[in-house]
Amino acid sequence: MRPAFVFDVVARDGDARTGRLTTPHGVVETPAFMPVATFGAVRGVSPGELEALGAQILLANTYHLHERPGEEVIARAGGLHGFTAWRRPWLTDSGGFQVTSLGDRVKVDEEGVSFASPLDGRRRLLTPERAMAVQEALGPDFAVALDECLPPREPGESAAAAGVRVRAAMERTLRWAERCRRAHARADQALFGILHGGVSAALRRESARGTAALGFDGYCHGGLGLGEEPAVRDEMVAEANAVLPPEAPRYLMGLGRPEDLLAGVARGVDLFDCVLPTRNGRHGFLFTRRGVLHLRNARYREDPAPPEEGCDCPACIRHSRAYLRHLLHCGEALGARLASLHNLRFYLRLLEEARDAVRAGRFAAFCRSVVDGMGVGEG
Amino acid sequence: MRPAFVFDVVARDGDARTGRLTTPHGVVETPAFMPVATFGAVRGVSPGELEALGAQILLANTYHLHERPGEEVIARAGGLHGFTAWRRPWLTDSGGFQVTSLGDRVKVDEEGVSFASPLDGRRRLLTPERAMAVQEALGPDFAVALDECLPPREPGESAAAAGVRVRAAMERTLRWAERCRRAHARADQALFGILHGGVSAALRRESARGTAALGFDGYCHGGLGLGEEPAVRDEMVAEANAVLPPEAPRYLMGLGRPEDLLAGVARGVDLFDCVLPTRNGRHGFLFTRRGVLHLRNARYREDPAPPEEGCDCPACIRHSRAYLRHLLHCGEALGARLASLHNLRFYLRLLEEARDAVRAGRFAAFCRSVVDGMGVGEG
Repeated sequence: MRPAFVFDVVARDGDARTGRLTTPHGVVETPAFMPVATFGAVRGVSPGELEALGAQILLANTYHLHERPGEEVIARAGGLHGFTAWRRPWLTDSGGFQVTSLGDRVKVDEEGVSFASPLDGRRRLLTPERAMAVQEALGPDFAVALDECLPPREPGESAAAAGVRVRAAMERTLRWAERCRRAHARADQALFGILHGGVSAALRRESARGTAALGFDGYCHGGLGLGEEPAVRDEMVAEANAVLPPEAPRYLMGLGRPEDLLAGVARGVDLFDCVLPTRNGRHGFLFTRRGVLHLRNARYREDPAPPEEGCDCPACIRHSRAYLRHLLHCGEALGARLASLHNLRFYLRLLEEARDAVRAGRFAAFCRSVVDGMGVGEG
Repeated sequence: MRPAFVFDVVARDGDARTGRLTTPHGVVETPAFMPVATFGAVRGVSPGELEALGAQILLANTYHLHERPGEEVIARAGGLHGFTAWRRPWLTDSGGFQVTSLGDRVKVDEEGVSFASPLDGRRRLLTPERAMAVQEALGPDFAVALDECLPPREPGESAAAAGVRVRAAMERTLRWAERCRRAHARADQALFGILHGGVSAALRRESARGTAALGFDGYCHGGLGLGEEPAVRDEMVAEANAVLPPEAPRYLMGLGRPEDLLAGVARGVDLFDCVLPTRNGRHGFLFTRRGVLHLRNARYREDPAPPEEGCDCPACIRHSRAYLRHLLHCGEALGARLASLHNLRFYLRLLEEARDAVRAGRFAAFCRSVVDGMGVGEG
């Protein structure tokens, strides 16, 4: 990794590992969960609260910040750290996924992705070089290369056609990776490459080999969590990780449920992000180690218990299920916020305990106990 | 006042006064501003944050809590203090104002107010006795008698017709006050009467005399802030206060802008509530001592200054105008929350300083300096 960045793997348990990822803005203990701060803020949650919850690093969406307020505004405010006052590490995505999923009339060619902005309808072009320039301006500790992000199988598509399309996208992502590598100049920013290859083990290995040959500071597993079977996804991650240099951090993008994170850790993943804790919280779904609490359910109308017994989050320490249910029911913003705080703490604590379990050499038993506990049903 | 309640006026400056209002849940230094917790929560703000901002007492809306979750649910959870975990004093309104303004097909007769619920369309009847029972179940420290709340002048109405209507409503409110006084039984809850009389000094005096004769623990100025001139409103408050027993606290309901609060304090008002700090915050209007900041304005796009120099609120301590503007612009919930925190702190600090000024015998000079400062325009 480039100067100011160090990744030390401090313990292993099978393929799972725990480490310390040093950045210019502090250390991230891995495996780590990155809360998603789409617009430079985790929905309704303040930086001070995130610190208290144990968040170590946040993910921001390059595309959204490029549209509003624009990367130059953020650069002049001291980058993401200065602009948002979250002064611990940041990672940004490349913007490719948002452009493809949110843009209108998306067109991908060798040059890049062109699309009509959903905000003003004007046509924009995102190229590998542009993705690097925007992320250099935003100033996160970790930037990510631009990829061509496609689902493994489109509706009505034959397996053969999908295979051709997925290979082509993987190969184009490799060529874009090379352009990103060349364009990226900031010495105080690490750059991660992205692996593709759909649900083909051979393509995933080829993607990992090709990307690693370009020499990135870390590697992302892209194009997963798009409907494939969890077992297939786990295999894709394992196949690629077997090829990647073990000394580089690995990031499984956009996933997922608690059991998905643990499955990733078991296969050697170091970083995760997902909007589930905040999105599910807003909808009244609270993660607990005894299952997901559907807090809008009438059975909690007078339940004086905290959302999760033994949890140390601000919602559980002070409030009852009955009060949270009432707030969510009324659409009172404090309800979404308290539920988000609980779910974020759940994810962050899950990975704290995963790190402990890896260090203690009992990660497999830990996973079983979490999955068995959560399988019980309503908590 | 009844046992467990004491109101000590500790200093006077003209008609302005500062005091200590002791309740079963702690002391309120007056004059005090009560943040509005419509559904039992101040929009998006946690009890812990309100404590840190210096809030002493909250107002909840009886009608909203009666609809959801229902007063029995709150009673069984230990009243508002237990249900919401705000364990300092609470005041509830009578529900009359919400019923009249939110209900469909409102009909007022001697028995009470009947209306169709906007939630389920079913017809409900709010009587003085029912208003007392609901508030006794909710369990605030301060309950408020049911009033007939009407605007001083309806569109197209002659002055004579308005006069007849306003007198009739004032007299009915007096009869309802008597029924409330008789129905109210909780010894650990103080009960406030409500004065009416529109913009007639004679009616306001008559209302104050009649209500005071019934012997309430405190008195509310009702039916103001409905479009009348500030000078007229100030006169109504002064006329009634001259008649009220000086040892009882006085509450000016639902007002208002910072200058309205100071004008009330100058005329001997002890308690205020208003949704302006949170509502204006959500819309990007931030109160500062140099005027109102229209934070959505493009001129703040790159402004690195805190919303208000020298302010000790969580928004000003950590964040810039540029970041808050960005969050508000994106509809990110943290923006509304930080703006609300700032505005609440502004109101709470304004009354802290008003109390100091009364104690120091320089309240008039303090008012002038605040009004002059805020008149400057954009902060």
